[in-house]
Amino acid sequence: MATRVNTVAVLGLGLIGGSLARALKTNGFCERVIGYGHRAPSLEKGVELGVIDSFTLDLAEVIDSADILVICTPTLVAEQVLAQILPAIAGRADAPIVTDAASVKGNLERAARRICDGQYPPRFVLGHPIAGSEQSGVAASRADLYINHRVILTPVAENDADAVSLVRDMWLATGADVVDMDVAQHDAVLAATSHLPHVLAYALVDALAQSDASDDIFRFAAGGFRDFTRIASSDPVMWRDIAIANKAALLEAIDLFSGHLADLRTAVAGEDSDGMHATFTRAKAARDEFAAILAERAKGK
Amino acid sequence: MATRVNTVAVLGLGLIGGSLARALKTNGFCERVIGYGHRAPSLEKGVELGVIDSFTLDLAEVIDSADILVICTPTLVAEQVLAQILPAIAGRADAPIVTDAASVKGNLERAARRICDGQYPPRFVLGHPIAGSEQSGVAASRADLYINHRVILTPVAENDADAVSLVRDMWLATGADVVDMDVAQHDAVLAATSHLPHVLAYALVDALAQSDASDDIFRFAAGGFRDFTRIASSDPVMWRDIAIANKAALLEAIDLFSGHLADLRTAVAGEDSDGMHATFTRAKAARDEFAAILAERAKGK
Repeated sequence: MATRVNTVAVLGLGLIGGSLARALKTNGFCERVIGYGHRAPSLEKGVELGVIDSFTLDLAEVIDSADILVICTPTLVAEQVLAQILPAIAGRADAPIVTDAASVKGNLERAARRICDGQYPPRFVLGHPIAGSEQSGVAASRADLYINHRVILTPVAENDADAVSLVRDMWLATGADVVDMDVAQHDAVLAATSHLPHVLAYALVDALAQSDASDDIFRFAAGGFRDFTRIASSDPVMWRDIAIANKAALLEAIDLFSGHLADLRTAVAGEDSDGMHATFTRAKAARDEFAAILAERAKGK
Repeated sequence: MATRVNTVAVLGLGLIGGSLARALKTNGFCERVIGYGHRAPSLEKGVELGVIDSFTLDLAEVIDSADILVICTPTLVAEQVLAQILPAIAGRADAPIVTDAASVKGNLERAARRICDGQYPPRFVLGHPIAGSEQSGVAASRADLYINHRVILTPVAENDADAVSLVRDMWLATGADVVDMDVAQHDAVLAATSHLPHVLAYALVDALAQSDASDDIFRFAAGGFRDFTRIASSDPVMWRDIAIANKAALLEAIDLFSGHLADLRTAVAGEDSDGMHATFTRAKAARDEFAAILAERAKGK
């Protein structure tokens, strides 16, 4: 590992922030990791578990002492945290680099420009580790969470190249695959592969739970249904916030999907054997190819 | 096991029929299991693997020699097999009992009445084992496939009580949980928990595969997407046939779902935090409860 920095600050110590802290300490990317948040208990637990070296509830102290600030709060809270950080570091030559781990990038890019009167702050690097788990909280954090997982950085034209490079090195130190993407492209891809499926799973389970036959429905559902609806067990607050933050791309994805579902409904209603067969066959081929890619990636792990 | 019969015939020797044959032989429910089909290779393999004792390509021979005929063919093929069997056994006092393992029941009930000029044949018992696997074919068959899985019987008013009882005993011998249900209720429940999710998964994967960003989409999709889309890797022919066989209930399920999705789209577009939170929270509660039931059932296994 070529790069070493003194202090990384994790703002918001849950599964994502805690796992980053563990990975950076395990791999010696920095001398120390400090935690910041609004409430002491999870930070105290982080120190107890050895996830972080120390913590503070004082944002000014974090800004003064850390080389990199990583905002690991929920999506909409990240906008508020940015509103506190960016004015405090504006124009400071010794200001820390700021990055984040939120699921949507466009809303934070817009927030950063708004907070800085239209000027994107060059040392704020937008990032998104694509990792997670059904568990949450610092107690579930793991040093290996990011190994072979994708981290997408979405640098903008105004970004300081050194800042982007340091954030990239930080994620590489966790064992992640780091790739760059355009902000809009990131939000569209995530809407399609993650945000839309969550909305579909929530809509399906809620529709069935409210139907007259809901007792029988859940009594006779089997393994396929369990897998298909697993993501409907995700945190409602987190997903409400993501839906709001990525509204435009999510609406586009919902509409794309709804159009295809309407076509398939027409095929079912008309007993259009060939149409259904063609759609199902194309989908199976795409899904099998995707599964093969994932299996290949898992082998590399 | 109280009941023992001499010969069970499995018509269509794939995963479902092969696993039934193995389970019945393992548990001594019958003296022998014979296989029937249109093509010899899978039947020969069934004999080689010890799944069945013998096979024939002659349906008349099956009808003459078996006590129970179990139709384990694909859904729409089952209608054709019924059309061959039911006239051959009409009015015969020594006729074997006939049952099936198809995913949809209403189409077979209608087919039976049609074939028998409006008179439902008393010794034809509609049944559906809710079990399966991503694998298929006789080579994937397992004696324990049905243990602790649900088998739904949908007897009709005209059914012979002894025939229903013997079919129930047969499935109990495999280790399954056997429950009775109304035909229409079965088809509605299966449409909701299985047929609709398959249509949604196929529609989603096909929509994404055809989008301009499909390369990125599949490159950056992760574990949640893999689980959500697993059923889109299912056999296109099987699911086309199920969609046709259960058209009415499936269309109703699609419409129920589409209404809920449209409501959720409105909530996203209007940034209706409370509405989204309420829906997501209800869905999570229902899904968590369902997962707990499944976990409990798995413990009993």
